[in-house]
This record gives sequence, structure tokens and C-alpha cells, in this order.
Amino acid sequence: MLTGAEYLESLDDGRITIFEGQRVTDLPGHTVLGAAVHRVAAGYEWLAANAVDGQSPLAGVPTSPEELRAKVDVVHHAGMMAHVTYTSIMTLATAAGRIKDAAPGYIEPIQAFIEDAHRRDIRITQCITDAKGDRSRPPGKQDDPDQYVRVVDRQADGVVIRGAKLHITGASLGHELLTIPTKAMKAGEEDYAIACMVPVNAPGVKIINTTYAPRHADTRDFPVSGKDAAPEGFVIFDDVFVPRDRVFLDGEVSLAAMFAHSLGLWERLGGLSGMADQADMLVGLAQLVAESNGLAGEAHIKEKISEMIIHATVVRACLEACLTHAQIGPFGAAFPDELYTNAGKYTGAANYSLMVRHLHDIAGGAIVTAPSISDLESAEVGGLARKYMSGASGDGEYRTRLFHLIRDLTADAYGGWQAVTAIQAGGGLYAQRIVTRKHYDLDRARALARHAAGVEA
Amino acid sequence: MLTGAEYLESLDDGRITIFEGQRVTDLPGHTVLGAAVHRVAAGYEWLAANAVDGQSPLAGVPTSPEELRAKVDVVHHAGMMAHVTYTSIMTLATAAGRIKDAAPGYIEPIQAFIEDAHRRDIRITQCITDAKGDRSRPPGKQDDPDQYVRVVDRQADGVVIRGAKLHITGASLGHELLTIPTKAMKAGEEDYAIACMVPVNAPGVKIINTTYAPRHADTRDFPVSGKDAAPEGFVIFDDVFVPRDRVFLDGEVSLAAMFAHSLGLWERLGGLSGMADQADMLVGLAQLVAESNGLAGEAHIKEKISEMIIHATVVRACLEACLTHAQIGPFGAAFPDELYTNAGKYTGAANYSLMVRHLHDIAGGAIVTAPSISDLESAEVGGLARKYMSGASGDGEYRTRLFHLIRDLTADAYGGWQAVTAIQAGGGLYAQRIVTRKHYDLDRARALARHAAGVEA
Amino acid sequence: MLTGAEYLESLDDGRITIFEGQRVTDLPGHTVLGAAVHRVAAGYEWLAANAVDGQSPLAGVPTSPEELRAKVDVVHHAGMMAHVTYTSIMTLATAAGRIKDAAPGYIEPIQAFIEDAHRRDIRITQCITDAKGDRSRPPGKQDDPDQYVRVVDRQADGVVIRGAKLHITGASLGHELLTIPTKAMKAGEEDYAIACMVPVNAPGVKIINTTYAPRHADTRDFPVSGKDAAPEGFVIFDDVFVPRDRVFLDGEVSLAAMFAHSLGLWERLGGLSGMADQADMLVGLAQLVAESNGLAGEAHIKEKISEMIIHATVVRACLEACLTHAQIGPFGAAFPDELYTNAGKYTGAANYSLMVRHLHDIAGGAIVTAPSISDLESAEVGGLARKYMSGASGDGEYRTRLFHLIRDLTADAYGGWQAVTAIQAGGGLYAQRIVTRKHYDLDRARALARHAAGVEA
Amino acid sequence: MLTGAEYLESLDDGRITIFEGQRVTDLPGHTVLGAAVHRVAAGYEWLAANAVDGQSPLAGVPTSPEELRAKVDVVHHAGMMAHVTYTSIMTLATAAGRIKDAAPGYIEPIQAFIEDAHRRDIRITQCITDAKGDRSRPPGKQDDPDQYVRVVDRQADGVVIRGAKLHITGASLGHELLTIPTKAMKAGEEDYAIACMVPVNAPGVKIINTTYAPRHADTRDFPVSGKDAAPEGFVIFDDVFVPRDRVFLDGEVSLAAMFAHSLGLWERLGGLSGMADQADMLVGLAQLVAESNGLAGEAHIKEKISEMIIHATVVRACLEACLTHAQIGPFGAAFPDELYTNAGKYTGAANYSLMVRHLHDIAGGAIVTAPSISDLESAEVGGLARKYMSGASGDGEYRTRLFHLIRDLTADAYGGWQAVTAIQAGGGLYAQRIVTRKHYDLDRARALARHAAGVEA
Repeated sequence: MLTGAEYLESLDDGRITIFEGQRVTDLPGHTVLGAAVHRVAAGYEWLAANAVDGQSPLAGVPTSPEELRAKVDVVHHAGMMAHVTYTSIMTLATAAGRIKDAAPGYIEPIQAFIEDAHRRDIRITQCITDAKGDRSRPPGKQDDPDQYVRVVDRQADGVVIRGAKLHITGASLGHELLTIPTKAMKAGEEDYAIACMVPVNAPGVKIINTTYAPRHADTRDFPVSGKDAAPEGFVIFDDVFVPRDRVFLDGEVSLAAMFAHSLGLWERLGGLSGMADQADMLVGLAQLVAESNGLAGEAHIKEKISEMIIHATVVRACLEACLTHAQIGPFGAAFPDELYTNAGKYTGAANYSLMVRHLHDIAGGAIVTAPSISDLESAEVGGLARKYMSGASGDGEYRTRLFHLIRDLTADAYGGWQAVTAIQAGGGLYAQRIVTRKHYDLDRARALARHAAGVEA
Repeated sequence: MLTGAEYLESLDDGRITIFEGQRVTDLPGHTVLGAAVHRVAAGYEWLAANAVDGQSPLAGVPTSPEELRAKVDVVHHAGMMAHVTYTSIMTLATAAGRIKDAAPGYIEPIQAFIEDAHRRDIRITQCITDAKGDRSRPPGKQDDPDQYVRVVDRQADGVVIRGAKLHITGASLGHELLTIPTKAMKAGEEDYAIACMVPVNAPGVKIINTTYAPRHADTRDFPVSGKDAAPEGFVIFDDVFVPRDRVFLDGEVSLAAMFAHSLGLWERLGGLSGMADQADMLVGLAQLVAESNGLAGEAHIKEKISEMIIHATVVRACLEACLTHAQIGPFGAAFPDELYTNAGKYTGAANYSLMVRHLHDIAGGAIVTAPSISDLESAEVGGLARKYMSGASGDGEYRTRLFHLIRDLTADAYGGWQAVTAIQAGGGLYAQRIVTRKHYDLDRARALARHAAGVEA
Repeated sequence: MLTGAEYLESLDDGRITIFEGQRVTDLPGHTVLGAAVHRVAAGYEWLAANAVDGQSPLAGVPTSPEELRAKVDVVHHAGMMAHVTYTSIMTLATAAGRIKDAAPGYIEPIQAFIEDAHRRDIRITQCITDAKGDRSRPPGKQDDPDQYVRVVDRQADGVVIRGAKLHITGASLGHELLTIPTKAMKAGEEDYAIACMVPVNAPGVKIINTTYAPRHADTRDFPVSGKDAAPEGFVIFDDVFVPRDRVFLDGEVSLAAMFAHSLGLWERLGGLSGMADQADMLVGLAQLVAESNGLAGEAHIKEKISEMIIHATVVRACLEACLTHAQIGPFGAAFPDELYTNAGKYTGAANYSLMVRHLHDIAGGAIVTAPSISDLESAEVGGLARKYMSGASGDGEYRTRLFHLIRDLTADAYGGWQAVTAIQAGGGLYAQRIVTRKHYDLDRARALARHAAGVEA
Repeated sequence: MLTGAEYLESLDDGRITIFEGQRVTDLPGHTVLGAAVHRVAAGYEWLAANAVDGQSPLAGVPTSPEELRAKVDVVHHAGMMAHVTYTSIMTLATAAGRIKDAAPGYIEPIQAFIEDAHRRDIRITQCITDAKGDRSRPPGKQDDPDQYVRVVDRQADGVVIRGAKLHITGASLGHELLTIPTKAMKAGEEDYAIACMVPVNAPGVKIINTTYAPRHADTRDFPVSGKDAAPEGFVIFDDVFVPRDRVFLDGEVSLAAMFAHSLGLWERLGGLSGMADQADMLVGLAQLVAESNGLAGEAHIKEKISEMIIHATVVRACLEACLTHAQIGPFGAAFPDELYTNAGKYTGAANYSLMVRHLHDIAGGAIVTAPSISDLESAEVGGLARKYMSGASGDGEYRTRLFHLIRDLTADAYGGWQAVTAIQAGGGLYAQRIVTRKHYDLDRARALARHAAGVEA
């Protein structure tokens, strides 16, 4: 297992990382991106401290509902990069089971990579979303053929790929890029049916970073994003060579969707468990700020908090149901139930905006107008600011910090990122509805209706 | 166990049952109420056919999550009167566990009654909702002290009660009335803290019936309510004597809410499991009618059905979670988890109107304008009616029956009853929100928020 | 102008009207349909009593926003058949303006008919919705070519039509059937591009009736539908001859949609004004029943009523805006603004189910379990029923009648018809969204966004 | 009329303005706050360029619905500070009409001030929301009596006030602070019934500023907030003397709410008209980004945009209705109709989160991951970034700018401020419901319901 320090060193590998038009040469020391890098290092330390028999708690594939449930918790605590790494590994394991009969030759390289990844204790990000060009047209009908990542050259020992992958959380902070087709491909689109693993520092890889990390002089006003803000990577493959043993699919169009579907399941499970915890936190925050305003006893406030509680409980119920009904796949791995996972993820995403609206309605305008911590420390107005921010809590700083948390979580750059990714992670509400429908037992439902109508087939 | 015929005979016991201003003397033969009575008889036959070791499948208290899950299914299939009976028995068992320390003297009569009820294989309805008078005032502050059921006389061997209980589904079709306080009582309201069991034919009991049963000459246009329509009883206790061994609470105001809370849990579990199955049926019906209209491939139709699927799945997830997390009570009985049960019941009820709106939007105006079955049989227009009702299904009668089912379920008297009871069963959306809040771990949520804000206590 | 009695006589004209498989020979005297017939007669009397210079207040086309506003009120009060007649006339007037350049030959017959209709003071229903068969296919691609009304024979002096029109409110209670294409037609569908006027008693016209009218012995429990329940007509044209001067379009496929679009506008205006008044009534009813329950001061009840008020106000604001921005058409007639009319109709329809849910939530279960008026009159239980139904109002009958009204309006056959037609009138929520979008100034909106983005074209 | 330059000079008046713990001495030159200051100066220039007879278009009180409608447009274009100034003046004019009988002595100072303000062409901000302390207690029952602004000393020629006013948009950029009671006061709270006008640079006034203005090095990625970001003022009255002729209410508790109610009306009118325009812009933005993604023809995208259109239209309908039904007050001033204004403001606020959710759902993850403008200019990756951002628009920069606008408006600091103030301006959704209810004609609604129920009073 890597130490935090070893992780920091590992990033100095010649990777091309761009931020706001400039090349970043020192990631751990970067003014805006550095905090996130150090957070990943801290995650390594946490895992090492929680190692079992010298093994990372992340290692190993769960083989029962109970193991799956335990793993969900570990991953959740180990931080964003551990989470995307785990998702990548489980995606590979799941996809391997689904392609093993049709394309057995890829199983060995996949399994070898998984072992190697555990051994090296690396971080992997999943690169799925293509640039897509004109989304009304398929990959092969674009004006520019590079709008979906494709093989531009096949050589004896590997392939050369070109294209871009968008919205890759933490791409610049990991070691490898799991590059997979964004969707099903058709005959004639063989060059787009490419899945492979690419090191972040491979020649031709260029990553443009964006981030919701605060640019304020004093990040104390950002209790969450001030400490952790994984940058989003715009990953460009500018003719990158991939050796054969890192290629996990190449041209089998009928299997192209297997990786995306596998990733989707694990990404939505991660999303669902994250939303369940987040929802509870938002409930708690609504309650704290209501108490702090002296309004916790107001009927309409209690109604709104009750609605938030019901939402949080329903999301968690879906998590419980998808774990209780976990299924065991080809290689003995436990997978969450697809139907409950998707329905839960969708419900969490669709109602997220209402959770935020309720929280804003309960808390009041001080979410965006509370003084900064530095104002509270001002000799000229600090005492007055604390006096007038005290509310029913008697402590102006305590209440100010609650407002800062609400702003940071829901009404500033990080909140915006949350709102967008709540909806977009796993493919937008529309895609999530389609997936849920696909896994629902419509025949049983039809039979129930036919029986009631007296028109049984 | 009673046979269906024995059940029918048992109703001829002198009970005072009123329907639209008239005394009903022959329940099984009554034009409007008779169908429901025979449905109960059929339920007795079904249970007898499914007896285990000569025991009704209804008998016995579940002692594990698995047994609880199995029982939920049996009760669901055995019909409305079996359901309310089971709910009554479980309410008594649950309440007994909750009052045993504070009022041990009632345990023996309760347990004796449960045994006797199983032996006699009777049907019991739960009488909870009082007339309530002016609901802004408590029982003891009403202009008319009888607006909540109360003890008007205490005698050596029993009590005399007066008042009315409303919305008692199937009251006239059962044998006993489980009469319990509608809510918590306070000091000074001892006379209202009365729980007891009253035979339907006890002197002074008078039941006014209302029903959504169709009054049409030809009930074939009502595929559900034409066969089964349990009447609602307005149960009046016009000074009814109750012997001491049928009294389960008398004056212990601090315990008055125990029965209502116990009933609430089981009623909401029943409501939740019923809603889960009903939601699946509505999904199937939406799909069938969309296919029958030739519109199943339309994007906006698929979107609506997907939303219905997600709702159905979320409600079922809550059912799964409340069963998975069932708890074992004082006498070894398994109880569904209160939080998930309530959140699920609430969600099902709150979204029911949207499910119906989607179904109406998908199906079209023929829900309320489709010809009757007798029109399809008319020599003059039957052939033409079938021709023009055929849609994409090629069968005018098949499609007509789908519309009749939708109307019967959602757009006629039974549909109205469903819409109202979806919301009101278990106390209205407001009460359900309060109960959910009560069972949520708000302290844990607060701690999560405090941690994130950096203001840990 | 016709008297009520003359109207009743006019129905005895040989028309073929079917109800539940039987021919109806005496409409005014029919047990189920008769009440609605007499209501139409009463509407004639009301108009006669409000005549201006011997002219029906229905007559005349509004030529300014103010006249349009006044007409909306008159039509609203004159009853359903006056409303559909007015809508038919305005549809013809509007369509005439829209086809006058492309097909001037139809203008004279249309205007002649309008004058004749005013002179005869007849009632006209609008027949638009075809049977449609498999809705995924156009009229000309159906297995059965009759699934859309079509010309099956063209003769020197007229045409012969075949097909069916569905959901024709009051078809059997009027004198003429305004038959128009349900949608746009394409080249090759000339036979389906037929608009004409057909007398109800023309040979070959057969109307199957359905109705939400109560079948109960005592209709006092149905304060609205017991007095008025316009039957829905399933109108069959079994090879009906239409003389040339009653043909308003025949084969001009490019104009086929003009009639439907014209009807749509007036139908939605009628729907919008009806919804605005209905919404106010539901608000009032919610308030009355809350007061009657003693709960009008409860915070959560007030919140729900406030939401209902906002909905009612928003719907009325759309009515106000569509009248304020009325436009003057080719023949000087005033038309409501399309955008506001549609957006208002949509909003009223989409939120109707929430209005009902709130009303049910506020009122309680007695909506479907309140005793009948006959129970209140029973010697045996009438006094007790009144006593226990009195609530906070002190008058059991008053409160009972409120519950009956709520049930009749929202939780019984008429309520079901309302819920379905709220959504379906004007073509379903999907169609209403499309129409709104069509009339919105998307170019202006695009320009606003471009300006803000700094990417002006 | 002031020029822009004169305005900038006028701010150098000794005012105490704090930002992030530091005293701001040069507002126009301040790194973060400066842009907003210059925007106000530009607003002065715009008004001067549009002067009528040497008068600011802001001057003058509308006396008819038409004048009111015209003024709404002018104010909307003149910028935030012109808007709050206009609102302040109209609040004074409206309040004067409402208190003139009960407290005639204040009319002359109010009218004198209005004239003087027009003459000096100053900017005035409205200070209403108090710190409030424990909101479950009234002003007089707080542990700290200063939690609501109060008179701490009465002197011959004026009063001394103490307290704080929160969420005062632009407080530091204006010249005067219109200080009014936040709500109704009761007997014993005379010291809190204080309305007055205070210069920003009066001794004892201290303003802490917060702002959503971007802190990024390159503000081109913030097309809206990079140019204009009015700071929020936390206004502290640290024992400020107010001369008698600037006091508009002092101790008349029964009139304390008149100012707040008057302000509320104008604030909500401003909010409503702003929301109507903003909603149209969001519709246009959704359409542009859908086209740019190549998805404008997708059924589910069109559905969402149609829903956004309907929302935008409904909000505008309320604006139209409140203007059409404007009323003329005591001094001949035209006031928007309260009912429609409030219902519209509420609807706009309550649905704002859904508008944003739809926009996020339509646009996709690039809202928060699009490269910066500086990335597009990078020699190393600029060309590639443009290539892969081009979408269906063929122009990577155009599409990138659309995403930046969406992020700036809805998913970053300014978007958070918008989301919070959409709900909180005018007092939170709860307060807005109460106000709407207050202005609704509940008696008429009750009468409609009574008539329908047959229980007329």
C-alpha cells in the first residue's frame, strides 16, 4: 500500500495537466488544486490505518449482500478517488462477467490488470462521456469523426486512440484512465468500440481541469469545498498509443455497451449511497438552522423538515432494497439489484432540488448574506456582527457557520456542481428513467392488470 | 374454521344495520350490499382450502422478518375482512406488549380474546375514528360530551359506552368491533380512555352503511367494485353495555394512545403492501392501454410510464426495507420498522394522485365515454361499437374492458373512495408526516450536519 | 328564440339514441338521461328571460376584448349545451377567417349556416375526436379505413360519410353535429379532409350514450350531478348523406387542421374560464369544510388552502391575460390570446389533481362515508346521525351536505369524469404543451439568452 | 440629474464599509466590489441619456395602469440600484396614503423627502429585515433588546436608533437607508415602531458587505456576475442620531406594518417583473443549448422546454393581470393588484428550482466542466478544447459561453444567490402564501361552494 507521501511523489510523472490556460507542474503545491491533492493523500493514510492483514480495505470483491453492504460504507469514507477507483475495478469485474462468453480473450488482461492495480495501490478514474459532437447523430455520422474516442491506427503491439472524454472527476489526480465506449455501437462503428486502460502520463494525454474550489483569500467560509474539491478533467487523447495487454475491447460492437452498463450500475450505487447520507445531513442542517433561528417549533417549518425526512428515508429504503436483493454474478461477485438502485438514484436526483428549496426556505436570506469569519474577527465590527448573528443560539459564530455550510453545500460553486451532477451522474434523468424501465418486470404488471380487467390472455 | 355458508348464517344475529334510511334484514340477499357479503364468504372458503394442519393461515403471530413477509402476502390475498381482522389481532398483540408493565391486568383478557377469536374464526373490525365534534377542542371540552366514545356508566360487571365511530370499513360484515381511543388522552379525560371489544349485535349498536358499490342494472361495467365493495360503517354506540372481560383499557389516560399507535403501524403496513401491489397494477394497466391505443412507442407515453414504474418501485423498496428491518417485540412478535413503513405509506398516498393523472393522461377520454358491455351486445349498434372501439388491439371488447377497469379503479365511485382513503387511511398526510418524523433519527442527522459545519458539540 | 317546451318537443324527431344497449324513445322522460334534458330546457328559459331586443344573449360575435369578456360570462351561465353551441359557432367563424383566401367557396355556406342557426336557436355539438384505430398510424394507413370519419361516396348534390366521433358531450341533446377533421391531413388523405354539419336525426346517425348521472334511488346525495349530467355521445355515421350546402371542407388537406385549431382555441377558453370558477369554488369548499371540522385555524390546513388560492388565482390571471390581449381577426371578431389561453388551460388541468388531493386531505374520510340524506331522516337513526355529523358547525345536515358535494364533485362518477376531462379536453397534457410552445415567442427568448451569454448573432 | 462621475465621487463621503474584515476606502477602485459600483454609474448615464424634459425617467409617480406598465419597464432596465430606489420611493408614497388619516403629521416630511430625493437624484436602499434574535419571540421579549432596530434615546430634535438590518442589497452603494419596521408591532413595543431615513455616512452606520462577485483572476467565465454583482449589506446602526424631519414613524405601533406591507407590494412587483423576464431568458437558454447539443428535436427535451415555457407564461400572465387590475390610491398613484402580484411572485419563486432543474437536465454536465475562456486561448490545448466543445454548433467557443452563462446564472455563487433570494425576497414562501390568502376574496369562494352544496346561508 502506498503512503500519502508516496502518492504525492507519484504525481510527478510528466503528466500534462492544464488549469485556466496554464500548465500545472506542481500539483500538490498548486494554489487552487493543491487542497484536493492532499485530501487524496490523506485518504491513502486512512486506508493504511484501517488495513486488514496488510491489505487495503478497498481490495477484494464482495461475494454476498452483507459484504457488499460493508464495502459501500468503506468506499464512502475513503474519499472521492478511492470511490472512483473502486467503481472502476467493479466495472471491469462486472463487464468481464458479461463479455466472457462472447470475447473470452479479454478476460485474462482484465484480471491481470485488476491484480496489478491492487498490488500497486493506484487510483483509476473512469472515462466514459465522449465529446459527442452533434448528439442527434451517431459516432460514424459526425462531421468530425473524432467526436467519439476511436482507434485511428492499429499496430502489431497495440492501438492508437484519438478523441476526448469529458466530466472525468479527478482525472488529473489518478494514475490510470479507464477508457470505455459511452454507449452501444453498431456495425460500421468498430473503431469506436474501444475499451482500454491508459496511464495519465502516457504521451498524448492532455487534461484540462476545472474546479469548484473556492478562490477566496480565506477558505474558512467554505467548510466543505475549502478542504476538498476534486477537479473535473477534460481528458484529451491526442493520438495515444495503448499496448495490446491494456486493451479490453477492440471492435466488438455488440459488446460495446457492456462496460457502460456495468459502470452505470456501480456509479448509481455510489450515487445512491452518497445521496442517502447527504440527505440525512441536509435534514440535520435544516433542523439545526431552524433551532438556531428559533423557528423549530413553527408548524410550517416542521412540515418542511418532515418532507425532507421522508425523502431521505425513501432514498435510504431504495439503498436497503438494492442491497437486500443483491445478486451473485458469474465470478461470484455480488451486484446490487439494478431496479432498486436506479429507482433510488433517480428519486434522489429528481427531488434534490426540492430538498435544497426547503432548506433555503427554512434557513432564510443569511445563507448568502452572513458575514465572513474574518468579519467576525474584525476589531471594528466583529463584536457587533456576532451580536446580531446570534439568533436563538446565543452564539453568532455557531450560527454563521451553519449559514456558511448551507451556502457552500447548496448556494455557491460547490452547490452548483452538486445540483448539476445530482442530475447528470449516471446519464441525466431521462437516461435513468429508461434504465429503470428496462429492469422493471412489466410482464408481471401487465398480468395483474389483465386479471383485474377480466381479459386474461 | 367457518365455512362460507356458516359465515352467511352467522350474520343473522339480530344486528341493526341501516342502509339509505332502511333497516337491512337480509345482508347476503341485499341488492347493493350482498355482493360484498358473498365475497367475505368466498374468503372463508379460500382460507379453508389453504389451511395448514387445520389452522387458518391467518392464525399465529409472526416471529421473524421472514414470517412477517409471508403473512403480509397471505393477508393480502384473503380479502378485506381477513385483512382488518388480522390488523385487529396484531393491534391487540402489539398494544398488549406496550401496556403490559403499566397495566398488567388487561393482558389476560386480551390474550384470552385473541385465542377465542382464532377458535371462533370470527371477523373483527377496528373502530378508532370518533365523531370528534369541533376538532379544535379536546374530548372533554366539546359542547356535546358524546363526540368521542366514552363511558357513561360503570357497573359492577362492566361499563356502558356512548358515542360513534366513523369510517369503519366492513363493520356490518364482521362479528366484533374493536373499539379504541382515537388518540392520546389527558388527565380529566378518563371516561374517554376506553378500549373494548363489542359484538356487532350487542344491544344499542346501530350501524349506518354507505358504499361505493355500483347501483347500475348491469355491474359488468364495474370489473372490480361490481364484485367486491365493502361497505363503510358509521357505528353508533347508543349506550352499549360491555362486560368487564371485554374491556382492555378503562381510564388509564397515559396509555390511551397505545392502541391507536399499534393500530396505526399495522394499518400502514397493510396500506403500504396494498399500495405496492396496486401501483404495479396501475403500471401494467397504463402499459396495456397504451399498447391498445397504438401509443406504447411514443416518447412522452414511455416517460410517463417510467415515472409510474419509479413510483411503484420506490413504494415497494419501502416495503422491503420495513420488512428487512423488522424488530422483535416483548412477546416475540415481529413488527415492521416504523420509519420505513410510514415513509412508504406517505409516499404512496402523496403520489397516488399523480399515478392516476398519468394513467388518465395516457389512456384518453374513453375512460369515461367507452360504451357499456350491453351496448357491445346491442343488435342495433353492437357491431359498430366494437368496430370503432378496437384501437390497435383489433378487439373492441378487450379495449373497452380496459377502459372500464380504469374508470372503475380511478374515475368512478370506487376510484373516489380509493383516492380519499389513500390519503386518509392512517390519519391524513399531516398525521403521517408527524409519525415519520417521530421515528426518524434526528440526532444522528444533526450530528452529521454539525460535523460538516465544523461546529461539533 | 325557442321556449323550453319547444326545445323538449324538438327532440322527438326520430333520432337514434342508445343507452345501455336500449333505444331511447322519450329523452325528456328517461330515468337516467331526463334530468339533463330538462336542464337544457331550463337554459333556454334563462336565455329568453335575459334576451336583449328579442335576441338571445348568445347571439352575435364579440368584436372587442370587453365584448369577449362579457360573452364568456353569459356562456358560462347558460349551461353546457349553450356553451358547446357557442363554441361551435365561434369555431366556424374563426375557421372561416383562416380558410377564406385558400378556399373562398366555403365562406358563404358557413355564414349562411351561422345565421340560420341563430334564427332557429338550435343547439350544436362539436364532433372532432375520431375512433383513430391504431394511433401510431395515420388515417390512410389503418387496417380499417373507417377509423377516421371519411367520405365514402361523392354525389352530385352532396357526400356520404362514414366513421365515428367519440366523447361528444351532449350529442343526443342537440340538433346538429359539427363534424370536423380531428387533425391535419396529408396528400392522399383527401377523403378524410371533411368538415360538415349533420342533423342529429339524419338517417344513418346513431348515438350511444354514456353518463355519470347517478343511478341511486335518491339523487339528493348528488347535489351537482343529480341535477345536471350531460351524456357523452359516441356518434356513429353509418353512411350518412350530407347535402352540398352543409359541407364546409371536402378534400383540401392543407386546410384540414384549421377547424380543429379554431375549435381548440375556443374549447380551451371555455375550459379555462370554467376552471377559474371551479377553482374558486373548490377553495370555498375547502374553507367551509375546514371551518365545519373546527380546523380552519390549523397551520397545515391554512397552508393547503393558501396553495389552492394561489392555484385558483394563477388560473384566473391567465384568463385575464388572454382576454386583455385578445386579438381582432379577419372578420372583426375578437379572439383570446392563444398563448395565455393554452398556458392557463394546461396549468388548470395539470394542477387539478393537486387541488383535489388538498381538498380530500383537508376534509377527511367522511367525504366517502357520510350518511345519506335519507339516513338523516330515518326514525331509527336520523337523530343520532345528525348528532354525530354536526362537527363544529352544530348542524349535522349542513356538514353532511358539504361532504356530499365534495364526493359528488371529486370522488364519485362525476368527479371521475371531471378528472379525466380536465386533462383530456383540448387534447391531453401533451397536446396542450405542444400548442403552448407553438404560440410562444421563442426567438425573443433566444435573443435574451444570446445577449446575456455575450454571443449575439 | 447626476452624471456617472458625480455618482462615483459622491461615494467618498466617509461611509464605513467593511469587506472581509477590512475597511473599504475606495469603493470604485475595489478589486471585488468595484465592478458593481461602476455598473451603478453606468445606470446613471443611461437614465441621463433617456431623460424626458431634463427629468429622470425614474421620476414621477404613475397614475394609471398604462403609466405603471411603462414604469415597470424603465425601472427594469435602469439597473438594481435604480430599482431599489424606485421601490423605496413608491413604498413611501404608498405608506403615506395608508397612514395619512391616523398620523397626518408624517405626510409632509415624507413628501418633502421624496421631492428632495428626486432633486438630488440619489439612490436609496430599503432596510427592513431585522436581526430578529430568537424568532419565536417578539421584539420586546428578546434576551437582547437590540435584535430589532429600536429607539434608544429620544431627544428634542430627533431620535437615536440601535440595531441591525440584514440582506440590504446595495446598501453600501446608495446614499440613504430607508429604515422601517420589519413587521407589525404591539402595545409596549413603541420603541420598535420606528421608520426613518438615514444617510449611509451618518455617524454610527457600519456596513459589512458580502457578495457573489467572482474572485477568479479571469472574470470572462462569468458573463453576468463578472460585470454586475451588487453587494449585500449587513447594516449596523450603532447608536445613530436621526433628526426629526427624517423620522416617518415613531411609536405608533398600530401603523408599524404599513411600511412593510407597502414595501412588500412593490418589492414583489419588482420580483415578479424580474422573474417574468428571467424565465423567458432561461427558456431561450435551454433552447440554445439544446440546439447546440444537437438535441433540440428530442421528445423529452421538447417536453421540458414546453414546461419551462408554460411556467414563464404563467408568471407573465400574473404580471399582466396585476397591471390590468391596477388600483388608484389616495394620492392618485396607481398600485398593482395585490392578489395577482403575490400569487405571481409566489409561483415564480416556488417553481424556480424546477426551471433550473430542467435547464441542468437539458444542458448536461458541461455546465460545470466546460473549459475556461483562457483554456480556449491556450497554445497547448486551445485548438483541441474548441474542437471537442463544438457540439452541433460547429463553434467551440459559442457553446462554451452558453455553458458558462448557465453556470454563472444557476450553478455558481450568483446562481446560489438567485436561488435563495427567489424564495426569500418578499419574506419566504410561507409569508407569500399568507399575503396571497389575505388578499383573496374568500367570502365569494365560500358563497360559490354554499350555492353548489345547497346550503346557502
